[in-house]
Amino acid sequence: MDKLSVDHLIGIKSLKKADIDLIFRTAIHFKEVINRPIKKVPTLRDITIANLFFENSTRTKISFELAQKRLGADVVSFSSSSSSLNKGESLIDTVNNILAMKVDMIILRHPNPGSPLLLTNNTNSCIINAGDGSHEHPTQALLDCFSLTESLGDLKDKNILIVGDILHSRVAISNIHALGLLGANIKISCPLTLVPKGIQNLNVSIETDIIKALKWSDAVNVLRVQKERIEKSYFPNNREYSMLFGLDKNKINKIKKDILILHPGPINRGVEITSEVVESDNSIILDQVENGVAIRMAVIYLLASKMNFTINEQ
Amino acid sequence: MDKLSVDHLIGIKSLKKADIDLIFRTAIHFKEVINRPIKKVPTLRDITIANLFFENSTRTKISFELAQKRLGADVVSFSSSSSSLNKGESLIDTVNNILAMKVDMIILRHPNPGSPLLLTNNTNSCIINAGDGSHEHPTQALLDCFSLTESLGDLKDKNILIVGDILHSRVAISNIHALGLLGANIKISCPLTLVPKGIQNLNVSIETDIIKALKWSDAVNVLRVQKERIEKSYFPNNREYSMLFGLDKNKINKIKKDILILHPGPINRGVEITSEVVESDNSIILDQVENGVAIRMAVIYLLASKMNFTINEQ
Amino acid sequence: MDKLSVDHLIGIKSLKKADIDLIFRTAIHFKEVINRPIKKVPTLRDITIANLFFENSTRTKISFELAQKRLGADVVSFSSSSSSLNKGESLIDTVNNILAMKVDMIILRHPNPGSPLLLTNNTNSCIINAGDGSHEHPTQALLDCFSLTESLGDLKDKNILIVGDILHSRVAISNIHALGLLGANIKISCPLTLVPKGIQNLNVSIETDIIKALKWSDAVNVLRVQKERIEKSYFPNNREYSMLFGLDKNKINKIKKDILILHPGPINRGVEITSEVVESDNSIILDQVENGVAIRMAVIYLLASKMNFTINEQ
Repeated sequence: MDKLSVDHLIGIKSLKKADIDLIFRTAIHFKEVINRPIKKVPTLRDITIANLFFENSTRTKISFELAQKRLGADVVSFSSSSSSLNKGESLIDTVNNILAMKVDMIILRHPNPGSPLLLTNNTNSCIINAGDGSHEHPTQALLDCFSLTESLGDLKDKNILIVGDILHSRVAISNIHALGLLGANIKISCPLTLVPKGIQNLNVSIETDIIKALKWSDAVNVLRVQKERIEKSYFPNNREYSMLFGLDKNKINKIKKDILILHPGPINRGVEITSEVVESDNSIILDQVENGVAIRMAVIYLLASKMNFTINEQ
Repeated sequence: MDKLSVDHLIGIKSLKKADIDLIFRTAIHFKEVINRPIKKVPTLRDITIANLFFENSTRTKISFELAQKRLGADVVSFSSSSSSLNKGESLIDTVNNILAMKVDMIILRHPNPGSPLLLTNNTNSCIINAGDGSHEHPTQALLDCFSLTESLGDLKDKNILIVGDILHSRVAISNIHALGLLGANIKISCPLTLVPKGIQNLNVSIETDIIKALKWSDAVNVLRVQKERIEKSYFPNNREYSMLFGLDKNKINKIKKDILILHPGPINRGVEITSEVVESDNSIILDQVENGVAIRMAVIYLLASKMNFTINEQ
Repeated sequence: MDKLSVDHLIGIKSLKKADIDLIFRTAIHFKEVINRPIKKVPTLRDITIANLFFENSTRTKISFELAQKRLGADVVSFSSSSSSLNKGESLIDTVNNILAMKVDMIILRHPNPGSPLLLTNNTNSCIINAGDGSHEHPTQALLDCFSLTESLGDLKDKNILIVGDILHSRVAISNIHALGLLGANIKISCPLTLVPKGIQNLNVSIETDIIKALKWSDAVNVLRVQKERIEKSYFPNNREYSMLFGLDKNKINKIKKDILILHPGPINRGVEITSEVVESDNSIILDQVENGVAIRMAVIYLLASKMNFTINEQ
């Protein structure tokens, strides 16, 4: 059986192209599983997984939990509001305690960039990063790229545009790394205040004219305007942002070609994208969500198979 | 096999009498199941249900979760405090995302009246209303009426009294619709400020003299005084409310007949009902709770059997 | 089969030595189970357990949930933030309602001392105290003493020191009762302001010179400085507390003997104990956590076997 080159999923940056190919091949199998009448396999029934979410999340947490349950794993979850972190304990101690209870794998969402990496160096477990501050969100990038390949095939030399708050977006950074590995051409479009320094070193070009950028694209990944992250000074207001960078029917009509529409959610309808575009035929936003469960099943399965677990092959 | 006339349970208003009869017959079976040593059946092991609770709840949430687990379903739950609704996403988008993860049925509690109906029109799923603002709480009314029939038999021409804050109570409205379908005579008793406009059109009579009302009754359903909903001006204070409408031993003794006592919970002991009455022989309050699990199993089972699911008949 | 002398686990104070011996023998078996590749047994698959946590908790809640799942039980959990206690319902009513849904066992953590005892007198269920205010935390004491016996053998006449905020610590009180039953010699060391009145009646001696106390000890249980419980006036500040009573390499070196280090967690590193000591060879802190799951499995199993449940013997 093929193996991943890594023992954890901390970021796309630490993956090789062969890893992504393996994850995609495995996800195709699990996508078929979750579309059967019986959506479950007993593959990982001897493994216990803890979901530790120190930031609000609905879709990512439920997606991970469903992935785990459909693999037959035992699941314990907690979110920050009910945690003992308020009591001054360190993250490493919290995780080491949970591991001592014979938990085999940790899914971590944490506001501090680098927290999952910290755990790989200080605990004896398998760690999956479910988003660490503005650093990386690798399973999101994997599901985005997997969704792209379903429609576009091999991403080599395909033109992929990312629109939005690149500066604060772990989704953008992880996508840029993944698209780079897969050989896609990457462009970003956003106010210049939201461009991270040194982004050009990742083979990313910048185009502030959204129409030109869209005309170039085979697909566009529209990022959420993160009200809770951004300070007002990055751009004047939502209305101006929508006029300049919001994806609407008017802009789509101007480019006179079909391009795929992606959005990692949650969507601010009417801000970064209009309802019309969300629900248009070229939108694969809900495919992304469905693929998210399959991708997470694949990642969990492949990492578990690198540990000494009994895997019940179907 | 008999089928419900509906594909969702949004409110009692949309049910027919035959639906209620079918739900009750099915609940009798499931009540027998949960009183066995092994309280579970594998009937719905191929179905995934999401409980979305956007309002505080203990009993209703646990009751639904136990009903689902005892039917063998896979369950994911979230409550508003840990949701992404804070991020400005619409309810329809939240639910469509969860459905895209291959979730088959949604249990929704939401403060906005009409939210479950909104979902039936804008998502492709099976929706059960677990309480929508002051609109309806259909499973509560079904378990109330089911509990009544256990003691009183056919409710046709039985006299059922509802005491309390009818104006703000989804429990009252759902009960009035259910009792109407089942042919019961319905009376309400409360301060006139708490009578909804047009209630007489639902064949409900009003009696502000609680002793007269109780004398007329075969059973009385005592509603909770909802401190968090009511404004002070509806009635002077709890003490006056208790004196006039609170159910106590004194009032019960005056009517010189046995009547069944129901309460949907949670109880404010000493406000709308005294401990003595809660614990009297005529109280079926804990039977209501037990029946709640059986009724919810029946509703979930009957709605699932209208979808294309493999039902494992016991 | 041997039976416990009690039907609930409210506190160590109500146990006999034979109960503790039985729990430890059973825990040895379950510790072997959770170290197998397949960490689960279907022993209690016909039982439903509710975890009611009215105080923040990570480790204890997850430990109980894992213990329950590994025994095959069905589990429902809620924590105070999502409860209906805000609606003014009494604890007894909440629990009676949950029991009416055919829940067989209640695990209760509650800020009010005596709440679990209240439930045994007013509900018809099996109650396990998971910490009630500053009263008792019996499963913690059991896992602490079980961990001690793994290293020290029979605790009779062994010298056990407890350092820290004895006055506010349910962990200390439960440990003192358990160590007393097992025949250990018990000493406490802390600022005199943190000594409970009458502690000497429990055969506990006091030694404020930590070095003398440590020299006497076979093992030391270091309590967390509970920032949220303590008022400033009990001791000047954390730095002075650390200097006088904090366990550090310097103090350990002075005593020139090996003593076991325990800590119930969560740890305030650098306050009551330094990282060096936490991670030293004599520390059995993570063994305590592992044993916690085995002890809780044993307690749940033994209490369930006193009820009329079908126990699936492995």
